[in-house]
Amino acid sequence: MNPRALHKISYGLYIVSSIKGDKINGQIANALIQITSEPQTIAVSINKTNLTHEYMTQSHVCTISVLNQDTPMPFIGTFGFKSGRNINKFQDVNYKAGVTKAPIVLDNTLAYIEARIIDKVNVETHTIFIGKVEDAEILSQEKPMTYEYYHQVKGGFSPKTAPTYSRIMDQKSKKEI
Amino acid sequence: MNPRALHKISYGLYIVSSIKGDKINGQIANALIQITSEPQTIAVSINKTNLTHEYMTQSHVCTISVLNQDTPMPFIGTFGFKSGRNINKFQDVNYKAGVTKAPIVLDNTLAYIEARIIDKVNVETHTIFIGKVEDAEILSQEKPMTYEYYHQVKGGFSPKTAPTYSRIMDQKSKKEI
Repeated sequence: MNPRALHKISYGLYIVSSIKGDKINGQIANALIQITSEPQTIAVSINKTNLTHEYMTQSHVCTISVLNQDTPMPFIGTFGFKSGRNINKFQDVNYKAGVTKAPIVLDNTLAYIEARIIDKVNVETHTIFIGKVEDAEILSQEKPMTYEYYHQVKGGFSPKTAPTYSRIMDQKSKKEI
Repeated sequence: MNPRALHKISYGLYIVSSIKGDKINGQIANALIQITSEPQTIAVSINKTNLTHEYMTQSHVCTISVLNQDTPMPFIGTFGFKSGRNINKFQDVNYKAGVTKAPIVLDNTLAYIEARIIDKVNVETHTIFIGKVEDAEILSQEKPMTYEYYHQVKGGFSPKTAPTYSRIMDQKSKKEI
Protein backbone atom coordinates (compact mmCIF):
# COMPACT_ATOMS: atom_id res chain seq x y z
CA MET A 1 0.00 0.00 0.00
CA ASN A 2 1.45 3.34 -1.08
CA PRO A 3 -0.79 6.21 0.07
CA ARG A 4 1.10 8.53 -2.30
CA ALA A 5 -0.69 6.85 -5.22
CA LEU A 6 -3.60 9.18 -4.48
CA HIS A 7 -1.35 12.13 -5.34
CA LYS A 8 -1.64 10.99 -8.97
CA ILE A 9 -5.25 12.23 -9.11
CA SER A 10 -5.45 15.50 -11.10
CA TYR A 11 -7.20 18.64 -9.85
CA GLY A 12 -7.60 22.33 -10.52
CA LEU A 13 -7.40 25.06 -7.89
CA TYR A 14 -10.45 27.07 -6.85
CA ILE A 15 -11.81 29.54 -4.32
CA VAL A 16 -15.09 28.37 -2.83
CA SER A 17 -16.98 31.28 -1.25
CA SER A 18 -20.18 31.52 0.75
CA ILE A 19 -22.25 33.87 2.87
CA LYS A 20 -23.97 33.88 6.27
CA GLY A 21 -26.17 36.88 6.95
CA ASP A 22 -23.97 39.89 6.24
CA LYS A 23 -20.73 37.90 6.60
CA ILE A 24 -18.79 36.43 3.70
CA ASN A 25 -15.88 34.03 3.49
CA GLY A 26 -13.98 31.95 0.97
CA GLN A 27 -11.30 29.27 0.92
CA ILE A 28 -9.03 27.40 -1.46
CA ALA A 29 -10.33 24.02 -2.62
CA ASN A 30 -9.10 21.48 -5.12
CA ALA A 31 -11.53 18.56 -4.74
CA LEU A 32 -14.25 19.75 -7.12
CA ILE A 33 -15.98 17.81 -9.92
CA GLN A 34 -18.98 18.11 -12.17
CA ILE A 35 -21.50 15.36 -11.35
CA THR A 36 -24.17 15.67 -14.05
CA SER A 37 -24.59 17.74 -17.20
CA GLU A 38 -28.40 17.99 -17.45
CA PRO A 39 -29.03 19.68 -15.10
CA GLN A 40 -25.53 20.87 -14.35
CA THR A 41 -24.49 19.81 -10.86
CA ILE A 42 -21.14 19.87 -9.07
CA ALA A 43 -19.65 18.38 -5.90
CA VAL A 44 -16.93 19.82 -3.67
CA SER A 45 -15.25 18.40 -0.56
CA ILE A 46 -14.87 20.87 2.34
CA ASN A 47 -13.30 20.30 5.76
CA LYS A 48 -15.81 20.46 8.59
CA THR A 49 -13.63 22.76 10.72
CA ASN A 50 -13.50 25.48 8.03
CA LEU A 51 -15.57 28.65 8.35
CA THR A 52 -16.75 28.32 4.74
CA HIS A 53 -18.20 24.91 5.70
CA GLU A 54 -20.31 26.63 8.37
CA TYR A 55 -21.51 29.31 5.93
CA MET A 56 -22.36 26.75 3.19
CA THR A 57 -24.24 24.60 5.69
CA GLN A 58 -26.35 27.55 6.78
CA SER A 59 -26.96 29.47 3.55
CA HIS A 60 -27.05 26.48 1.14
CA VAL A 61 -25.20 28.49 -1.53
CA CYS A 62 -21.63 28.79 -2.72
CA THR A 63 -19.61 30.19 -5.60
CA ILE A 64 -16.55 28.70 -7.27
CA SER A 65 -13.80 30.88 -8.76
CA VAL A 66 -11.55 28.94 -11.17
CA LEU A 67 -8.05 30.34 -10.57
CA ASN A 68 -5.66 31.02 -13.43
CA GLN A 69 -2.15 29.61 -13.66
CA ASP A 70 -0.52 32.94 -12.78
CA THR A 71 -2.35 33.38 -9.47
CA PRO A 72 0.24 34.81 -7.02
CA MET A 73 1.18 32.69 -4.01
CA PRO A 74 0.29 35.38 -1.41
CA PHE A 75 -3.25 35.43 -2.82
CA ILE A 76 -3.49 31.64 -2.49
CA GLY A 77 -1.98 31.97 0.99
CA THR A 78 -4.70 34.36 2.12
CA PHE A 79 -7.51 32.08 0.99
CA GLY A 80 -5.79 28.76 1.69
CA PHE A 81 -3.79 29.13 4.86
CA LYS A 82 -5.64 31.76 6.88
CA SER A 83 -9.02 31.60 8.57
CA GLY A 84 -11.88 34.00 8.01
CA ARG A 85 -12.36 33.79 11.78
CA ASN A 86 -9.21 35.92 12.18
CA ILE A 87 -9.07 38.12 9.08
CA ASN A 88 -11.37 39.57 6.45
CA LYS A 89 -10.08 37.71 3.39
CA PHE A 90 -12.02 39.99 1.04
CA GLN A 91 -10.49 43.25 2.27
CA ASP A 92 -8.19 43.87 -0.72
CA VAL A 93 -9.91 41.58 -3.21
CA ASN A 94 -12.20 42.39 -6.13
CA TYR A 95 -15.46 40.50 -5.84
CA LYS A 96 -19.15 40.85 -6.61
CA ALA A 97 -22.34 39.41 -5.18
CA GLY A 98 -23.77 36.65 -7.34
CA VAL A 99 -27.40 35.75 -8.05
CA THR A 100 -27.27 33.61 -4.91
CA LYS A 101 -25.94 36.66 -2.99
CA ALA A 102 -22.74 34.71 -2.18
CA PRO A 103 -19.53 36.60 -3.09
CA ILE A 104 -17.68 35.75 -6.29
CA VAL A 105 -13.92 36.40 -6.13
CA LEU A 106 -12.90 38.05 -9.42
CA ASP A 107 -9.13 38.52 -8.98
CA ASN A 108 -7.09 35.80 -10.76
CA THR A 109 -10.39 34.18 -11.77
CA LEU A 110 -10.92 32.94 -15.34
CA ALA A 111 -14.40 31.50 -14.79
CA TYR A 112 -16.94 31.22 -12.01
CA ILE A 113 -19.79 28.96 -11.06
CA GLU A 114 -22.61 29.65 -8.61
CA ALA A 115 -24.46 26.77 -7.00
CA ARG A 116 -27.38 26.11 -4.69
CA ILE A 117 -26.64 23.17 -2.40
CA ILE A 118 -29.14 20.37 -2.95
CA ASP A 119 -27.51 17.60 -0.91
CA LYS A 120 -24.56 16.94 1.34
CA VAL A 121 -22.73 13.83 2.45
CA ASN A 122 -20.86 13.33 5.70
CA VAL A 123 -17.50 11.60 5.08
CA GLU A 124 -15.24 11.48 8.14
CA THR A 125 -13.48 14.88 8.45
CA HIS A 126 -15.16 16.39 5.37
CA THR A 127 -18.57 17.10 3.87
CA ILE A 128 -19.25 16.64 0.17
CA PHE A 129 -21.55 19.49 -0.86
CA ILE A 130 -23.59 18.79 -3.99
CA GLY A 131 -24.77 21.89 -5.79
CA LYS A 132 -27.08 22.70 -8.68
CA VAL A 133 -25.51 25.31 -10.94
CA GLU A 134 -27.46 28.60 -10.86
CA ASP A 135 -25.09 30.73 -12.88
CA ALA A 136 -21.70 30.38 -14.58
CA GLU A 137 -19.51 32.66 -16.67
CA ILE A 138 -16.13 32.58 -18.40
CA LEU A 139 -14.12 35.76 -17.73
CA SER A 140 -10.96 35.08 -19.74
CA GLN A 141 -9.22 32.44 -21.81
CA GLU A 142 -6.27 32.12 -19.42
CA LYS A 143 -4.99 28.66 -18.48
CA PRO A 144 -6.51 27.20 -15.31
CA MET A 145 -4.13 26.55 -12.42
CA THR A 146 -3.77 22.83 -11.88
CA TYR A 147 -2.96 21.34 -8.50
CA GLU A 148 0.13 19.77 -10.05
CA TYR A 149 1.35 23.15 -11.34
CA TYR A 150 0.73 24.67 -7.92
CA HIS A 151 2.87 21.99 -6.27
CA GLN A 152 5.56 21.45 -8.90
CA VAL A 153 6.11 24.90 -10.42
CA LYS A 154 4.88 27.24 -7.70
CA GLY A 155 6.23 25.09 -4.83
CA GLY A 156 2.94 25.16 -2.97
CA PHE A 157 1.91 23.13 0.06
CA SER A 158 -1.39 21.54 1.09
CA PRO A 159 -2.95 22.76 4.34
CA LYS A 160 -3.80 20.19 7.01
CA THR A 161 -7.51 20.59 6.25
CA ALA A 162 -7.19 19.67 2.54
CA PRO A 163 -8.70 16.38 1.31
CA THR A 164 -5.29 15.68 -0.21
CA TYR A 165 -3.19 16.60 2.84
CA SER A 166 -0.38 14.16 3.49
CA ARG A 167 2.02 13.82 6.39
CA ILE A 168 4.54 12.35 3.98
CA MET A 169 7.47 14.66 3.43
CA ASP A 170 9.57 14.68 0.28
CA GLN A 171 13.08 14.11 1.63
CA LYS A 172 14.70 15.68 -1.43
CA SER A 173 12.94 19.02 -1.24
CA LYS A 174 12.07 18.85 2.49
CA LYS A 175 8.56 19.91 1.81
CA GLU A 176 5.21 18.25 1.92
CA ILE A 177 4.09 16.58 -1.26
CA MET B 1 -25.12 31.97 -17.93
CA ASN B 2 -22.43 30.20 -19.90
CA PRO B 3 -22.58 26.43 -19.29
CA ARG B 4 -19.12 26.11 -20.85
CA ALA B 5 -17.65 27.67 -17.69
CA LEU B 6 -17.81 24.19 -16.18
CA HIS B 7 -15.31 23.02 -18.79
CA LYS B 8 -12.70 25.03 -16.87
CA ILE B 9 -12.73 22.44 -14.08
CA SER B 10 -9.57 20.27 -14.25
CA TYR B 11 -9.59 16.47 -14.20
CA GLY B 12 -7.43 13.44 -14.82
CA LEU B 13 -8.48 10.38 -16.83
CA TYR B 14 -9.08 7.01 -15.19
CA ILE B 15 -10.45 3.54 -15.72
CA VAL B 16 -12.90 2.55 -13.01
CA SER B 17 -13.36 -1.23 -12.87
CA SER B 18 -15.60 -3.52 -10.87
CA ILE B 19 -16.81 -7.10 -10.58
CA LYS B 20 -20.10 -8.97 -10.29
CA GLY B 21 -19.78 -12.68 -9.60
CA ASP B 22 -17.40 -13.98 -12.27
CA LYS B 23 -18.00 -11.00 -14.57
CA ILE B 24 -15.74 -7.96 -14.75
CA ASN B 25 -16.07 -4.59 -16.42
CA GLY B 26 -14.42 -1.19 -16.51
CA GLN B 27 -15.05 2.26 -17.95
CA ILE B 28 -13.37 5.61 -18.48
CA ALA B 29 -14.12 8.22 -15.81
CA ASN B 30 -12.82 11.72 -15.16
CA ALA B 31 -14.93 12.93 -12.22
CA LEU B 32 -12.83 11.51 -9.38
CA ILE B 33 -11.58 13.26 -6.23
CA GLN B 34 -10.04 12.41 -2.91
CA ILE B 35 -12.45 13.33 -0.09
CA THR B 36 -10.46 12.75 3.11
CA SER B 37 -6.86 11.87 3.92
CA GLU B 38 -7.26 10.05 7.26
CA PRO B 39 -8.69 7.59 6.42
CA GLN B 40 -8.14 7.91 2.70
CA THR B 41 -11.47 8.11 0.89
CA ILE B 42 -12.38 8.97 -2.69
CA ALA B 43 -15.53 9.85 -4.65
CA VAL B 44 -16.33 9.12 -8.29
CA SER B 45 -19.37 10.04 -10.40
CA ILE B 46 -20.72 7.20 -12.57
CA ASN B 47 -23.67 7.27 -14.99
CA LYS B 48 -26.55 5.09 -13.85
CA THR B 49 -26.96 3.45 -17.27
CA ASN B 50 -23.39 2.12 -17.33
CA LEU B 51 -22.65 -1.55 -16.66
CA THR B 52 -19.85 -0.62 -14.24
CA HIS B 53 -22.49 1.25 -12.19
CA GLU B 54 -24.47 -1.98 -11.87
CA TYR B 55 -21.37 -3.95 -10.82
CA MET B 56 -20.28 -1.32 -8.27
CA THR B 57 -23.78 -1.18 -6.81
CA GLN B 58 -23.82 -4.94 -6.32
CA SER B 59 -20.24 -5.74 -5.26
CA HIS B 60 -19.48 -2.50 -3.35
CA VAL B 61 -15.92 -2.49 -4.67
CA CYS B 62 -14.05 -0.76 -7.46
CA THR B 63 -10.53 -0.07 -8.66
CA ILE B 64 -9.15 3.07 -10.24
CA SER B 65 -6.35 2.97 -12.84
CA VAL B 66 -4.68 6.36 -13.30
CA LEU B 67 -3.92 6.58 -17.03
CA ASN B 68 -0.65 8.00 -18.32
CA GLN B 69 -0.43 10.82 -20.85
CA ASP B 70 0.61 8.47 -23.69
CA THR B 71 -2.43 6.22 -23.42
CA PRO B 72 -3.45 5.39 -27.02
CA MET B 73 -6.84 6.59 -28.23
CA PRO B 74 -8.08 3.10 -29.26
CA PHE B 75 -7.50 1.94 -25.68
CA ILE B 76 -9.54 4.88 -24.34
CA GLY B 77 -12.14 4.15 -27.01
CA THR B 78 -12.58 0.57 -25.82
CA PHE B 79 -13.17 1.59 -22.21
CA GLY B 80 -14.93 4.89 -22.87
CA PHE B 81 -17.14 4.44 -25.90
CA LYS B 82 -18.08 0.76 -25.85
CA SER B 83 -20.29 -1.16 -23.45
CA GLY B 84 -19.28 -4.25 -21.52
CA ARG B 85 -22.77 -5.53 -22.39
CA ASN B 86 -21.55 -6.03 -25.98
CA ILE B 87 -17.85 -6.79 -25.72
CA ASN B 88 -15.32 -8.16 -23.23
CA LYS B 89 -13.23 -5.03 -22.66
CA PHE B 90 -10.53 -7.03 -20.87
CA GLN B 91 -9.87 -9.47 -23.73
CA ASP B 92 -6.54 -8.00 -24.88
CA VAL B 93 -5.70 -6.02 -21.74
CA ASN B 94 -3.21 -6.78 -18.95
CA TYR B 95 -4.92 -6.76 -15.59
CA LYS B 96 -4.81 -8.43 -12.21
CA ALA B 97 -7.31 -9.12 -9.45
CA GLY B 98 -6.93 -6.74 -6.51
CA VAL B 99 -7.41 -7.38 -2.80
CA THR B 100 -11.09 -6.56 -3.34
CA LYS B 101 -11.15 -9.15 -6.20
CA ALA B 102 -12.10 -6.36 -8.64
CA PRO B 103 -9.86 -6.21 -11.73
CA ILE B 104 -7.08 -3.62 -11.92
CA VAL B 105 -6.21 -2.53 -15.48
CA LEU B 106 -2.40 -2.38 -15.73
CA ASP B 107 -1.87 -1.24 -19.35
CA ASN B 108 -1.12 2.51 -19.61
CA THR B 109 -1.59 2.73 -15.84
CA LEU B 110 0.89 4.68 -13.68
CA ALA B 111 -0.91 4.15 -10.37
CA TYR B 112 -3.95 2.36 -9.06
CA ILE B 113 -6.34 2.65 -6.14
CA GLU B 114 -8.71 0.02 -4.78
CA ALA B 115 -11.75 1.07 -2.80
CA ARG B 116 -14.63 -0.44 -0.86
CA ILE B 117 -17.80 1.58 -1.35
CA ILE B 118 -19.04 2.99 1.96
CA ASP B 119 -21.74 5.36 0.72
CA LYS B 120 -23.44 6.50 -2.47
CA VAL B 121 -25.46 9.53 -3.44
CA ASN B 122 -28.16 9.71 -6.07
CA VAL B 123 -27.75 12.86 -8.22
CA GLU B 124 -30.07 12.97 -11.25
CA THR B 125 -28.47 10.81 -14.01
CA HIS B 126 -25.43 9.82 -11.95
CA THR B 127 -24.44 8.20 -8.66
CA ILE B 128 -21.54 9.48 -6.59
CA PHE B 129 -19.81 6.43 -5.14
CA ILE B 130 -17.76 7.13 -2.01
CA GLY B 131 -15.04 4.59 -1.37
CA LYS B 132 -12.59 3.85 1.44
CA VAL B 133 -9.15 3.10 0.00
CA GLU B 134 -8.14 -0.52 0.61
CA ASP B 135 -4.96 -0.59 -1.44
CA ALA B 136 -2.99 1.77 -3.68
CA GLU B 137 0.27 1.53 -5.60
CA ILE B 138 2.38 3.66 -7.91
CA LEU B 139 3.61 1.69 -10.95
CA SER B 140 5.67 4.33 -12.78
CA GLN B 141 6.64 7.98 -12.68
CA GLU B 142 4.96 8.79 -16.03
CA LYS B 143 2.85 11.92 -16.34
CA PRO B 144 -0.87 11.43 -15.65
CA MET B 145 -3.24 12.08 -18.57
CA THR B 146 -5.30 15.17 -17.86
CA TYR B 147 -8.76 15.67 -19.28
CA GLU B 148 -7.52 18.86 -20.92
CA TYR B 149 -4.65 17.01 -22.63
CA TYR B 150 -7.09 14.34 -23.81
CA HIS B 151 -9.31 16.99 -25.40
CA GLN B 152 -6.73 19.51 -26.64
CA VAL B 153 -3.78 17.37 -27.69
CA LYS B 154 -5.34 13.99 -28.37
CA GLY B 155 -8.56 15.44 -29.85
CA GLY B 156 -10.77 13.30 -27.65
CA PHE B 157 -14.54 13.53 -27.19
CA SER B 158 -16.77 13.05 -24.14
CA PRO B 159 -19.36 10.28 -24.36
CA LYS B 160 -23.01 11.16 -23.72
CA THR B 161 -22.88 9.43 -20.34
CA ALA B 162 -19.98 11.54 -18.99
CA PRO B 163 -20.65 14.03 -16.16
CA THR B 164 -18.98 16.61 -18.38
CA TYR B 165 -20.86 15.78 -21.59
CA SER B 166 -21.98 18.85 -23.49
CA ARG B 167 -24.21 19.29 -26.50
CA ILE B 168 -22.32 22.44 -27.33
CA MET B 169 -20.25 22.08 -30.48
CA ASP B 170 -17.09 24.02 -31.19
CA GLN B 171 -17.80 25.62 -34.55
CA LYS B 172 -14.12 26.03 -35.39
CA SER B 173 -13.15 22.41 -35.01
CA LYS B 174 -16.65 20.94 -35.53
CA LYS B 175 -16.26 18.66 -32.61
CA GLU B 176 -17.79 18.48 -29.18
CA ILE B 177 -15.94 20.36 -26.49
